[in-house]
Amino acid sequence: MKKYNVAIVGVTGAVGEKLLRLLENAAIEINELHVLASARSKGKKVLFRGEELTVAETTESAFAGIDIAFFSAGGAITKKFHRAARNAGAIVIDNTSAFRMDAETPLVVPEVNPEALRNHTRLIANPNCSTIQMVAALKPIEAAFGLSRVIVSTYQAVSGAGLHALEELENQTKAVLAGEEPIATILPSGGDKKHYPIAFNAIPQIDLFSEDGYTFEEWKMMNETKKIMGRPDLKIAATCVRIPVMSGHSESLYLEIEQEDVTADAIRKVLSQAPGIVLQDDPSTQTYPMVTTAVNQKETYVGRVRRDVDNPKGFHMWVVSDNLTKGAAWNSIQIAEKMIEMGLV
Amino acid sequence: MKKYNVAIVGVTGAVGEKLLRLLENAAIEINELHVLASARSKGKKVLFRGEELTVAETTESAFAGIDIAFFSAGGAITKKFHRAARNAGAIVIDNTSAFRMDAETPLVVPEVNPEALRNHTRLIANPNCSTIQMVAALKPIEAAFGLSRVIVSTYQAVSGAGLHALEELENQTKAVLAGEEPIATILPSGGDKKHYPIAFNAIPQIDLFSEDGYTFEEWKMMNETKKIMGRPDLKIAATCVRIPVMSGHSESLYLEIEQEDVTADAIRKVLSQAPGIVLQDDPSTQTYPMVTTAVNQKETYVGRVRRDVDNPKGFHMWVVSDNLTKGAAWNSIQIAEKMIEMGLV
Repeated sequence: MKKYNVAIVGVTGAVGEKLLRLLENAAIEINELHVLASARSKGKKVLFRGEELTVAETTESAFAGIDIAFFSAGGAITKKFHRAARNAGAIVIDNTSAFRMDAETPLVVPEVNPEALRNHTRLIANPNCSTIQMVAALKPIEAAFGLSRVIVSTYQAVSGAGLHALEELENQTKAVLAGEEPIATILPSGGDKKHYPIAFNAIPQIDLFSEDGYTFEEWKMMNETKKIMGRPDLKIAATCVRIPVMSGHSESLYLEIEQEDVTADAIRKVLSQAPGIVLQDDPSTQTYPMVTTAVNQKETYVGRVRRDVDNPKGFHMWVVSDNLTKGAAWNSIQIAEKMIEMGLV
Repeated sequence: MKKYNVAIVGVTGAVGEKLLRLLENAAIEINELHVLASARSKGKKVLFRGEELTVAETTESAFAGIDIAFFSAGGAITKKFHRAARNAGAIVIDNTSAFRMDAETPLVVPEVNPEALRNHTRLIANPNCSTIQMVAALKPIEAAFGLSRVIVSTYQAVSGAGLHALEELENQTKAVLAGEEPIATILPSGGDKKHYPIAFNAIPQIDLFSEDGYTFEEWKMMNETKKIMGRPDLKIAATCVRIPVMSGHSESLYLEIEQEDVTADAIRKVLSQAPGIVLQDDPSTQTYPMVTTAVNQKETYVGRVRRDVDNPKGFHMWVVSDNLTKGAAWNSIQIAEKMIEMGLV
């Protein structure tokens, strides 16, 4: 079995740490693992399979001999180093939004559109966390019954904004419980002008605003879903909201299918057999997905499936997954595993 | 100006406490204020306009001479005592769900359907908290442009489940931050079998489940909205979710209007002139409603107004209000004020 030299760019971040843990048991035979980050983190130690690895600086020459490079250090770092990595022969699997909508770059959720991997030019984009879990749930429904429309409202975790945002949530929460003013310096978006406390709050802004009044997070969900599902015609609208949850995104989905006379039970049956999906749906035993049970799991959990009161082709459901796992690190690793399985790397 | 004898039933609860504070400055000339609760709370002291009042037990004879009785001690207490209060000559303004869908009982949001008060039989129902803020935002839009459909996902605060649930959120939050297991004994619903932690979680269940897979909270939003707006034909679906917020409900609304060629600006203009509504909507300055700014305010805040990407008659918006204030105590007081203004009491 072929062994691979693997690099993680951004290993000290929230997704980098998750990549380390998940690679320990992945179906990838690892020869060497190179852990890279910014100059600031150079020399730090990280653990992999009980062994200490020393973080090196991300440079153009750092990719010599690398077969697979996971990038999760922000779009600017991907743009700066992807060419050097690809030229060195590596397959770049990028967790940032830098190339997701690039026409030549496959945007892949392995359960949904693995065939797109065949057209790669040594760069694969990993979709946005909130998109991944949604398309994982939508695809089996589309395949069975058709799909014409989606309206989604998200309940997104703070870890999606990085480890510093998580610290901020923790510090703000302690401040509020102590009767003090919470201090906000990161959320809703580190790159925006104003910052609001997330502790005991709900913020209807993730990423910056585009001029049309939608946020870029909302546009990511809408555009990436169309690309991944190969459905430029799909009607889809998103409202993205940050809530005081550490890890795990929840989504309230309304969708309209094309086929008539489909029951909620038929939808449940399809979901229960879909790859990567766990159906948790039994109101009689209060069984439904929650982030407290989905965190650190690789699957996407679906529940509260019910038919719309007015539209017989409309259905509501509740979709939960760990945004750092299936939403980021695990999906990236699955891309690598799938490419190995398909003989593409 | 006429002076009124007023009673609060359930004065030691979350809504009762809010009623006390808001009555201090309400447009109701109060002669005597009687503070009532269960036998357990008898003898406790509460403050009203700087004066100590002693809590008495709610009994059938406690309503002698009362003109206006605010009930917020649970549906069972309303069912037990409303008749005695009405027979004693009081107007009962009930915060519970006991009579909301009763055909003979007006269900009123004063900005939306004040005329319904004329048909009262000395019992007025105050709608569900999540319903009130939604219809307050929907009514001016319906009046200007027509309204055919609503899909709502809620982000509801813990105080809606009472003071003990708030304590539970606080204790669970401290436990999680200390690395301990959070203990859950109340939420999602005190009357249900299983309990889940709300700290750093999102629970897609409020109230019990009905057999069709919707919760009763969701049915309240759907049925009460139709009744208040006088629109049994309105298409409306709700997904109700509890999040770790202390007070203040947020709602992600999708709605379809009837008129064509309406812009988001036109909707904003109508909302900015609507009674009880404050428009907070300027993405360029990150201005949108949040519970941290809406808490303890009487108004309903609306922002993130934008046209649907696919449906020119579809619009999305974000609606926030304090569930204990406009969602409960303040709306009840407004009902009393409106009845005084209309000469009905």
